[in-house]
Amino acid sequence: MDFEQSNLNTRIVLREYLPRGVISESYFSVDKSQAVPDADSLASEQILVSVGALSMDPHLRLFITASDPDKPPSPSGPHSLHPLGEAMSSIGVGTVVASKSKKFKVGDRVRATATPWQQFAVFHDHLVEKLPGDETVALEDYIGVLGMPAFTAYLGVVTLGQAKAGETLLVSAASGAVGQMVVQLAKARGLTVVGVAGSDQKTAYVSKIGADAVLNYKTCGDFEQAIRSVAPQGIDIYFDSVGGEFLDAALLNLNARARVILCGSMTTFGADKSTVKGVKNLDSLIMKEVVMRGLFYQPHVGTQAEADFIEEASQLVKQGAIHFKTDVREGLESAPQALADLYSGNNFGKLIIRL
Amino acid sequence: MDFEQSNLNTRIVLREYLPRGVISESYFSVDKSQAVPDADSLASEQILVSVGALSMDPHLRLFITASDPDKPPSPSGPHSLHPLGEAMSSIGVGTVVASKSKKFKVGDRVRATATPWQQFAVFHDHLVEKLPGDETVALEDYIGVLGMPAFTAYLGVVTLGQAKAGETLLVSAASGAVGQMVVQLAKARGLTVVGVAGSDQKTAYVSKIGADAVLNYKTCGDFEQAIRSVAPQGIDIYFDSVGGEFLDAALLNLNARARVILCGSMTTFGADKSTVKGVKNLDSLIMKEVVMRGLFYQPHVGTQAEADFIEEASQLVKQGAIHFKTDVREGLESAPQALADLYSGNNFGKLIIRL
Repeated sequence: MDFEQSNLNTRIVLREYLPRGVISESYFSVDKSQAVPDADSLASEQILVSVGALSMDPHLRLFITASDPDKPPSPSGPHSLHPLGEAMSSIGVGTVVASKSKKFKVGDRVRATATPWQQFAVFHDHLVEKLPGDETVALEDYIGVLGMPAFTAYLGVVTLGQAKAGETLLVSAASGAVGQMVVQLAKARGLTVVGVAGSDQKTAYVSKIGADAVLNYKTCGDFEQAIRSVAPQGIDIYFDSVGGEFLDAALLNLNARARVILCGSMTTFGADKSTVKGVKNLDSLIMKEVVMRGLFYQPHVGTQAEADFIEEASQLVKQGAIHFKTDVREGLESAPQALADLYSGNNFGKLIIRL
Repeated sequence: MDFEQSNLNTRIVLREYLPRGVISESYFSVDKSQAVPDADSLASEQILVSVGALSMDPHLRLFITASDPDKPPSPSGPHSLHPLGEAMSSIGVGTVVASKSKKFKVGDRVRATATPWQQFAVFHDHLVEKLPGDETVALEDYIGVLGMPAFTAYLGVVTLGQAKAGETLLVSAASGAVGQMVVQLAKARGLTVVGVAGSDQKTAYVSKIGADAVLNYKTCGDFEQAIRSVAPQGIDIYFDSVGGEFLDAALLNLNARARVILCGSMTTFGADKSTVKGVKNLDSLIMKEVVMRGLFYQPHVGTQAEADFIEEASQLVKQGAIHFKTDVREGLESAPQALADLYSGNNFGKLIIRL
């Protein structure tokens, strides 16, 4: 988008908070009352960004939904509510068009966790991240196939998992946002991949994107035996997003010097710990010198690992070697309906607004 | 010992298997019927070693005790019995006095897991390990203060634990063979150390060798609270030898990027898993990116880590900075009585036979 194209800065503004469970584009309005900020008006350490694409994510609901429909929304709730009358925000990417920051120059491509839904936005330079890679990578890919789930997958498979061709990787929640990238990054590096998911439809998708073997954990019976039956050679990397009993069974199928990546724990996060079944097989890690690592992507943002990830994954994208479904909508004005579609399931793939 | 001192090769020979639970020096005999092997008689890849010291260890009982006192000992039992009429063997160290191996030269100092109880012994070169360090380290120290428990402690604190001055280390079984070395190696590197043991006598010893704080797990009450009360700054390294509930409580006291070293699991090894209480707090490892590693010393033998360990630990020994109790007996003939003393508790410290 040309910086000079318009002197009005279109914004999507939150008009009122939504009642619980309901979402509709009518809660937003298109605002064209403000001018595009003048480059000269930037304060020191500020940059002006032309927003290129916005990510529509499930967690946005937390910031726009009244916690109690019978009471006025309270900003002191568990999540601070987005201010009414201000442009809505979500993860977004864009290009620097003016800078009073030493860290950024015009033309730099950036990503921000809280990007306002407007054509141009002013950021303090510590709230945006400079994107690695070059112009051959599409800007919207940084919130799509190269976004946080894919980076998390890369960190688990490569940076922490130290995957080597010929090894065997087991991944739970294999059809999920992270899991499907784990499958494909591991296959691209020459590993044998076993994917686990909770329906035959999901396991069929996991096979389609390259897994050598799949398990439906709801129908496979005893986990330890089921894993062994599809991977009698043993597991070198287990990418875990579920914790609990499946993790415990996976531990009994590990090879010496295996790596276990703890990325999520659907079965125990937020659960009453008195009802959780504990993991009993940690002692099996000792003689095999297994390494188990917690994985959280945030501390790795801006590291060499992220640059390496962008380089490797963007090559795979160019080669058509990665399946990643997106549902791209054109124009800022499409954002409210896109968000409503996300919550009603009227999307097919990762929802992205391209400005 | 001078190679030429005697042409008779004194040996301690196992005469008969012991009944269960009984041990006595009468089950051994001193044999002087064989000549010292001639250097010329060595086959290719063999070395002749002058044995310098022997380690007396609890597990030796497995090889000399009749599994059923009413039946003749069977070599097909769970542990192969040591052959009668042959020199007994245990972990030992010595000096090469003749070599037809490319790997060893005369003067090299070596350690072997199965060292015959005799003055001179012939080994195939793949059954002995060349010892790092120089002559300023006493040979017997390699089965004492520089032996396997200390090396295990070093691997956990330094190689896998990556201990840094100023960090806080928690160690269970802190008065044990490994634990007391963990305490001292960590203190020598400038860490704050919390030692856990199961009696006030043991915790007093752990304090004496340098721990900054101690916990008696039998009387401290709720583990999670007890750990927090003595280490409110949080734990950077947890050296675990117990597993189970104490491990689970320790996980809730870890700092970001903490390391958990799994070295043993007294509460679950060999236990009926249906009665074991599982570990429920593995999900707390994720956001903190904690690393949990199984530790087994064997794969690290002969690595640079072992050489580094010998260098650092032998310096500490010379400086008198390490407490390590030994009970050294003089002469090969003292071995049978030493072994009997080990099983009756008539020793004070690690039992070593110096030849």
